[in-house]
This record gives sequence, C-alpha cells and structure tokens, in this order.
Amino acid sequence: MKRANRSSSARAGGDGGVAGGEGAGSEAEHAEEITSLEGIPALSLDAISSVAYGPEAMLVVLATAGAGALAKIEPITVAIVVLLVILVFSYRQVIRAYPDGGGCYAVSKANLGHRVSLLAGASLIVDYVLTVAVSIAAGVAALVSAFPGLTPDSLPISLAVLAVLTALNLRGLATSARALLAPTAVFIVGIYVVIAAGFLRSRPAPGAGLHVAVPTAAAAVGVLLILKAFAAGCSALTGVEAIANDVPIFRAPKVRRAMRTEVLLGGILGTMLLGLSVLTVRFHIAPEASQTVLSQITGASVGRGVIYYVVDLSTTAILAIAANTSFGGLPVLASLLARDHLLPHVFGLRGDRPVYRYGVVALAVLAGALLVAVNANTNALIPLFAIGVFTGFTLSQTGLVRHWHHDRPGGWWARAALNGLGAAMTAVATVIFVVTKFTAGAWVVVIAIPALILLFSRIDAYYRDVATEIGLGTVPPTPAPQASLAVVAVTAVSQMTAAAITTALSLADEVVAVSVQFDDERAASLQSDWDRWDPGVPLSILRSQTRSVTKPMLAHLHDLHRQGHPQVLVVIAEVEPKKWRHQLLQNQRGIILANALRRHCDVNVVRVPFRLSKV
Amino acid sequence: MKRANRSSSARAGGDGGVAGGEGAGSEAEHAEEITSLEGIPALSLDAISSVAYGPEAMLVVLATAGAGALAKIEPITVAIVVLLVILVFSYRQVIRAYPDGGGCYAVSKANLGHRVSLLAGASLIVDYVLTVAVSIAAGVAALVSAFPGLTPDSLPISLAVLAVLTALNLRGLATSARALLAPTAVFIVGIYVVIAAGFLRSRPAPGAGLHVAVPTAAAAVGVLLILKAFAAGCSALTGVEAIANDVPIFRAPKVRRAMRTEVLLGGILGTMLLGLSVLTVRFHIAPEASQTVLSQITGASVGRGVIYYVVDLSTTAILAIAANTSFGGLPVLASLLARDHLLPHVFGLRGDRPVYRYGVVALAVLAGALLVAVNANTNALIPLFAIGVFTGFTLSQTGLVRHWHHDRPGGWWARAALNGLGAAMTAVATVIFVVTKFTAGAWVVVIAIPALILLFSRIDAYYRDVATEIGLGTVPPTPAPQASLAVVAVTAVSQMTAAAITTALSLADEVVAVSVQFDDERAASLQSDWDRWDPGVPLSILRSQTRSVTKPMLAHLHDLHRQGHPQVLVVIAEVEPKKWRHQLLQNQRGIILANALRRHCDVNVVRVPFRLSKV
Repeated sequence: MKRANRSSSARAGGDGGVAGGEGAGSEAEHAEEITSLEGIPALSLDAISSVAYGPEAMLVVLATAGAGALAKIEPITVAIVVLLVILVFSYRQVIRAYPDGGGCYAVSKANLGHRVSLLAGASLIVDYVLTVAVSIAAGVAALVSAFPGLTPDSLPISLAVLAVLTALNLRGLATSARALLAPTAVFIVGIYVVIAAGFLRSRPAPGAGLHVAVPTAAAAVGVLLILKAFAAGCSALTGVEAIANDVPIFRAPKVRRAMRTEVLLGGILGTMLLGLSVLTVRFHIAPEASQTVLSQITGASVGRGVIYYVVDLSTTAILAIAANTSFGGLPVLASLLARDHLLPHVFGLRGDRPVYRYGVVALAVLAGALLVAVNANTNALIPLFAIGVFTGFTLSQTGLVRHWHHDRPGGWWARAALNGLGAAMTAVATVIFVVTKFTAGAWVVVIAIPALILLFSRIDAYYRDVATEIGLGTVPPTPAPQASLAVVAVTAVSQMTAAAITTALSLADEVVAVSVQFDDERAASLQSDWDRWDPGVPLSILRSQTRSVTKPMLAHLHDLHRQGHPQVLVVIAEVEPKKWRHQLLQNQRGIILANALRRHCDVNVVRVPFRLSKV
Repeated sequence: MKRANRSSSARAGGDGGVAGGEGAGSEAEHAEEITSLEGIPALSLDAISSVAYGPEAMLVVLATAGAGALAKIEPITVAIVVLLVILVFSYRQVIRAYPDGGGCYAVSKANLGHRVSLLAGASLIVDYVLTVAVSIAAGVAALVSAFPGLTPDSLPISLAVLAVLTALNLRGLATSARALLAPTAVFIVGIYVVIAAGFLRSRPAPGAGLHVAVPTAAAAVGVLLILKAFAAGCSALTGVEAIANDVPIFRAPKVRRAMRTEVLLGGILGTMLLGLSVLTVRFHIAPEASQTVLSQITGASVGRGVIYYVVDLSTTAILAIAANTSFGGLPVLASLLARDHLLPHVFGLRGDRPVYRYGVVALAVLAGALLVAVNANTNALIPLFAIGVFTGFTLSQTGLVRHWHHDRPGGWWARAALNGLGAAMTAVATVIFVVTKFTAGAWVVVIAIPALILLFSRIDAYYRDVATEIGLGTVPPTPAPQASLAVVAVTAVSQMTAAAITTALSLADEVVAVSVQFDDERAASLQSDWDRWDPGVPLSILRSQTRSVTKPMLAHLHDLHRQGHPQVLVVIAEVEPKKWRHQLLQNQRGIILANALRRHCDVNVVRVPFRLSKV
C-alpha cells in the first residue's frame, strides 16, 4: 500500500463541523504487524504486478519502427533495471530517514516547503488514480487473453471490477497481508516458472544472424524512439516507493525489515523484467491487440495448459489487488490534504466505519472516467502514468538530500550523493516522459497537476477567509437570549400537528400557525377544524394561486421579520416511518421548504419527526 | 399528448406534507386552444409516427416463414385498418361522453370501479414508458438508415436523445401545437409523396405470377404466424386514444373539433398503412438489420436524393416529438395516482416551475433501462408494446358500454353496440398479443402490470394506516408547553458558536454545550478557550476513541433523556457560504449528525446557518 504520511499539522476549525479535526489513522488500523516477506504482498504488488504491462508498453513503442526494432527491448530493460537498483538503494535511505513512514507529500512538506508539497500532493493524486485504472485495465487484458470471447466486453468487465473494489472499500473490508501471501506466491513462482521454461525451450538466436539483423534495425531506430520506449518501460518502476511510505506497519525492527523488503522487491522485479525481455526477443514476440505480451510469452514457454491458466489468472488477481492498494492510499492522502485545508473537509470525514468514504468514491469516479475515456486500453494510459510517479521519486529524493544536508549524520555526504543521483536520474526521466509522450497523452497530466495545485491554493485561501469571518481565535461577546417566535407549518388537524405545536410552545415565547392552501373549500374546512380544536394558537391561511408552497411562506416570514422578531423558528412536522423503505412514500415538502427557507430567509428551521409506531 | 383525466378525489392529508393536496393542472396550462388541424401535431403524432415501425414489425414476423410469406402483409394490414376504423368511431363516442377528457384511468374509475381503474393505471404507465422507448429507438433507426456509419452507436445516440428530452421537460419547456405544425406537415406530405411516387414507379406484380406464388406461401404460413404478424402490426394503432384524453384543449366547439381530429387521424393513418403495405410487396422489401423498412421503401420510391433525406430526417424528428408527448402524459398520470394515494406523494409535487419533476425522472430512468436492455432495437420492444395500449382500449370502451347502459340517452343501444364491438375486438387482440408474444417478451408486461397493481394497493394501504395513526380527522388534546433543554454542538470558540448559543438561549429553558474530541491536546485547548470566553453555558467535552462523532453524542443525549427532559433541541451551527459551489467545501458533519439523531434519538434538531457575507 502506498500510504501518505500520517503526521499533519491541523489548523483548528475553520469549518462549521461539529467536532474537531480527526487524526488520520487510529491505532486499531495497525494491529497486524508484518514481516519482511509479508511486505511483498502488503506493499509491493503495485510494483511487481507492473511486469504485466511494462514490457508490453516498450514493445508497443518499438513496434512502430518495425519488427527489427523489437530486439531493442533488451538494452532498454537493462537501463531500466539500473535505474531500479539506484531507486532501491535510495529508498532504503528514505526508510532509514523517515521510519515513521515518509510519503512523498510528507518528505516534501518537511524539507522542500509548502509550495513543493502541493506539487507532491497533486502528483500523488494523479498517480493513485492512474494506478487503479492501469492495473484494472491490464488485469482485464490478462483475463481476455485467456478467454478471447470476452474481448469486446473489456470495458464493462473493467468497470465491474472497479465497482466491486469500490464496494469492498466502502464497506471497509481490510485485506490482511497474510491472506495475500498465497496468490502473490503463485504469481511470482508462476512468472519464474515461465521464465525458466522459456529459457529451456528457446535457444538464443545464432550469434551471426543476430548481428546481421541488429545493425539494420539499429539504423532504423532513432534516439527519440529509444527514449520513448524507455519512458514507457519505466511504468514498470511505479510502486517502488510504497514500502518507504508504510514503515510503521512492519514488526520490529521495523527499519531493518522494511529495508530488507525493499531489496527483495528490487531483486524480484529486476530479474523478472530482465528474464521477460530476453524471452520476448527469443520468441520474436510482437504486441497483439487480442493478447497481452505476457500471455504470449507464457503460452510460448509452457504451452496453453494448466500452468498457462494459473499464471494468467493469478496475473489478473494480482493486478486487481494492486488496484485495491490504491484504494487504501488515496483516501488517506485526501484526508491529510483536507486536514491541511487543501481539499474539501469532507475528505477527512469518516463514519462509524473507519473508511474515508468520499475519497473512495472520488477515486472510483476518476478511475472509471479514465477507463471509459481510453476504452480500457492499458497502453493508452501508459503515457500518462509514470510522470506523476517519477515526479514523486524526484521530490522525495531531493527532499532527502536536503534532509542529510541539514542533519549531517555520519557519512551524510555519501547518502546525499546516492539520493542526489537518484533524484537526478528520475528528474531526467520525468523530463523525457513529458517531452516524448506529450502528444500521446502526457499533456493531460501536464495540465492536471498544475490544475490540482491551483485548486489546493484556492481551497486553502477560502478556508482562511472563513476562519477569519467566523472569528476563529477571537473571544466573542457573551450571548444573551432574544425574543423568539415559532411559526408552525400546518397541513391538517391531527395528532402530528398537535405534537408540532407542543414543541413550538415549549421552545418559543410566541407561537403562530400558518397553512398554505390552494382552494377555498379545503381552506374553509381546515379553518373550521382548527376552530373546533382551538389549540390556543392563531392560524393564518395563506392562499396560493401559483401552486407554490414556498413562495407565500417566504413572503409571510419576511413580513414577520420586518415586524421585528429577531429569532424566528419555523416548525415543520413530518411523518417518520418505522421502515426505511416507507421513507420513499413520505412527501418531501418538508425538506424542500426547509432548504428554500435556509437559502432565502433568516430563520431557523426545526423538522419535528412524528414517529409511527404501528405502520 | 395522452393525458390522464384531471378530476380526482383527494383524500385529505394522510402525509406529513406542509400544505394540502394540489389539483392537477392549473388553468394557465391550457391558455393555448387548438383547432382540429392543430390536433394532429398536438395529439396524434404518437399514432401517425407509428407507420415508421408498425409495417416493419409485421415484416419481421413474416420473414421468419421465408420471403414468400412477406406478401401476407397486405391482408393483415387490411384487418388492422378495419380495427382502426372501429376504434376511431368508438373513440368519437368517448369524446362525446367525456368532453372533459376521459383518460382510460378516469373512465375506468367512474364506470368499472376502483380495482379496474388500478389495471387501467398500470397499463397506462407501461404504455407511456414503452412509447418513449419505442419512439426513440425507431427515430434513431431512421437516422442510422440515412447515415449507416452511425449504426454501432445507436444505443448511445438513443440515450442522448432521451437525455435531451428529459432535460427539456425538467426545464418545463412547453411545445406549442402551432410550432409542431410544420414538421408534422413535412412528414405527412413526405410519406404521401413516397407512396404516390412508389405507385407510379412500380407496377403491380403480374396477376398470374402473384396467384401462383401466393398459394405456396399461404401453405407455409400458419395461422399462428398470421396472428403474430397481426399482433406486431397493431403497434401501429397505439396513440389513437390520445385525442379523447385531451378534449378540453380544443377551441369551442370542443367536442366537434376533437371528433373531427379523430376522423382525420384515422384517415391519415389508415391510408398510410395501406399504401406502405402495398409498396412493400411491390418492391419485394424484406427487413434488414442496417436499414428500416420505411427507409427502404423511401429509397425505392424517390431514390436516395434530397427527398429521401427530408422524409427520413422528418421521421426521426416526428418520432422524437412523439416520445416527448409521453413526457407530458406520464408525470400528470403519476400525479393523479399520487393524489389517489396509489403512488408516492412526491409524484404530486411541483416546484415553482410547473413540472412534475419526479414523474419526468422516473419515466426517463425506466425508458433508458428498456433501451439499454434491448440495445435500442425497436423490434425487440414491439412484443411488449401493444398489450398495455390494447388493455386501455378495452377498458375505456367497456366503461363506455356501462356508461351508455346507465345513462340511456337516445339511441344508447347503438352506441353501446359500437363500443361493445370495439371492446370485444380489442380484448381479443389483447389476448392474441399475450398468447403469441408471451415468450418473445410479452411476459415482461404480464408480470409488470400485476406488479404495479400490487404496488398501488400496498401504497394505498400504507397511507390509510398513516392517516389513522396520526389521528387525521380526530380532535387532538389541547397542546401545552413542556420544559425544554437545548444542547449546542460545539467545535471551537467563534462568532458562529456564539450565534448558535444565542439561538439556544432564546429558545430553550436550559442550555448546555457539548463537544466531541479525539485528542487530549485539542480538548484541553477548547476547554481553556471556553473558560476564557465564559458564555454562561456549561461545556461537556466527550472523548471518542473510535473517531465517531455521532456515537458519543447519541449516548450523551440518551443520558439527558433519561434524566427527564421531555423536549430536547440539538443546535448545530453551520457555515452557509454565499456562493453555491463553496457549499462543497463545507464539512457535512452537521447534516450527518442531524440525520443520525433523527433516526436514533427522540430529539429535535435545528441547524443554525451562519451566513458568510464576505467570502
């Protein structure tokens, strides 16, 4: 799970909520502590599952230059694995420096200032949304590779998977790392079996033939294409940062275990990428619309037997779980941003169930829109993907250089150099992504990130203004009671009306009843019922020609206000049924009137529920 | 427009609304009175536009028995036109008997009793929904016949048309009959031009050839198939009842003008159906997936030139307008049913705009679901279509027989005989539809109509029970004030909190403040702020371990209740921003708490808005 850091400075209040700001995670959340090995299923699936789309993303780019260019995947993969090694060692340092969990947002805020932390927050949001969309699309691609008949339904299946994940997360279903151990092991072992079988079954192309082919291909392959393929392949490195974000969930010694998991992740991911790239070349695999590259490799290595289906379906499962981890991440990040007054405060709200509902829904809506926009095609999302992640890489590592420089522990310069190297390489990679992929879709991210930053600042400014206007931090004058008038909205004479008038009499100094009526007959009948009852409260009947209840009511209340009643309370009686479904049968006039009064009138409204006991 | 009758007996109250029941239509609705000719665009488009799918529906059935069976469309069309003539004369009688507009629901209620009127209401609802779905699907089919490239997008286009109609109707856009005159005239003239040109261009098949062909075909065509084709073709008769439903909108002499429109409609529809069926045979037209039958006939008659596109696009326009008229009908019917306590009362609600919003939305959702279910394929909806309409035909005419028998005006037995013949024929037709189309989709209607009737009765029973329980019609005891306690929910010390306490002091005999806090630091800081302010109201700080605001609040209120406070008022202060979009930035804790309290606790809640003036 990518998790943003939990420490946060909350500016008090600033909003009309009921109780103070909430801290991010309660202690109960971390009851389960994990080992190094369990760190792989718990925190590394986003990274490891990317072998399902990273190599394919490279091949798609290379294929544009003809079949001869496909062999370039090997050297490019070597470059990506070198970058992976640097990142792994750099993030070991992040773990050591931020043992409380150093999300890119938190590291940036601590070391690079408020403005840069906004950039970190924005790129993390983009990253989470894309992780969900890419993982689901790739998982469904793996599924339809095994069952080609499902191909036309890729988008509906993707949206169904998204809906299931959303529902599970709204219900607050916690997935235990231990439960994920088995499918993760199946997937990892499966991929290694595929690689081993592939190496046994294939022979390297005879040296001569290869050397003849490569120069002609190389001539045709420009630097730009190589860079584009590199940029696409770097999508396989997303998720490497996740372990560093969640150090506290490891069992003691936390830092050691987390660092070990990071190395383990690097080893697994690196060897898989290298093995798959070699097999791609040996089996002459080219991207196909109907089948993923991983499915082709698997088929070529182990045949389309039981092992094929196990590997393929475990790929789908692992990608779905990887998408699920973003559902753990974005809502927490959004709640932190909300607490820093950068996103609407609702993102910090949790019900009795420990779920940031609004964040889960927002993530589902955004990822769903992306899936629809690209028709669940993984490769259309790849150009958007790595930019946010690599921006995050660059920021965390740059922040760490500042951190070492400030704290200056023993050997700080070596550490700073390593993080600096990582920051420089990921910064260069980010620039390569933006430049080479701009027209292919990266422009979306180039617009989205500054737009998010602008949104953060506008929201921040709004909350500051509100805090000033409600006089937060000032001492208000001592409150004193004022004369009060209750206006009871009446439909007919009933026990319910009597209950509403009892409430009004208990609360206000003076009580009047008002009824809006549309025809003379009913108006007269109400008046005579009222006179017969004689509740000690005067009734005004307002006639409405336009069939509107709210307009005459508003006019009447404005009159009362002008006659100098400082505190007017409108009392609306409503039937409150026992069964929820009966709520649908209740007239919504009460809530409509209440909302209209709230908007247009300086009165308070109390809706008095009349609880049914029999129906 | 099919409109249900406006007279209705409203049972008073029975619901916790604010004001009495509303009459159905205000007088302003009928400002525009129409002539006989204007009755065609205003009330007859549903019927006339059905030439776009009726003949095709027959051909689709006949084609299952081979190309030779297609010629059977001619005798079947003759039978349908005979039925049309009987219906036209029968409905002239309905117009005369119910000059105030005799919807099938109203006629059944007046003559056949409560239970039968439920059947009428249910079949009308089914009919309105199907009219919208069939008209839109057929209109889009006409469109894609002209532009075959759009064929794969039929469903999205259909849903877009539905969305536009829904939006127009929610905005209360009134379409004037005069504005519709031009497109209606283009369509009618266009179809006649097609028929005339087709007759000129084609020759009747040589007598001998025809006679040789027909017997072999006839041998192959069973009675069941003929009945099925007849049932499918009867979809062309839907909408014949619409004029009788809306007699009051005609200019005086209303009855005469309405009767003239009915005959005019019968003449236009009958000649069109006969002409098109002859051309179908002459041009050897068979149903095609990519092009409607009407488009094929048009192309064969006038070529694919300008006239083709005018006829084809006016067909799409007329079908869209026909769908729109259902949007005028169902919401009014639903409001009548709501007023009779058979549907939820919200369907009787209108805002300041004269639109039954809930009915419009319900119709759009149901029609949209149907379009999605059949993938916007008109012919898949045809088996469901005519059952509801013909049930309505049968009920109105049977009702009229009872009406004549009861009133016994001069020559009543001749009138009763005519209506009786109509009722018998439509009843037989309804049975034919159900039997022959049951497995093809009619089962949906056979389930839906009784399900709706059951729903009506359940809702009716519920409202009766509620009226009893709230003591409607009884004289309640005289209300007396009770001791009141206000509990102010507090987040922080601010002007907003001060305003809430002022309101509480003005209303209740006793006031306390309560705050739910999650950590010690903030709790202590709030307590010291409170002590410094000293508003004369005690503050209780409730500590929550589970991060829930509502649970500790509920427990506290239950305690207060147990200590014997009969009237507890919870006061929640909320920021009320000036701009609507800023509402999104407000914490929703107030409304969440208010809803939780309403559900679980016997207190009243007042949410006091603190109006921002600057932000």
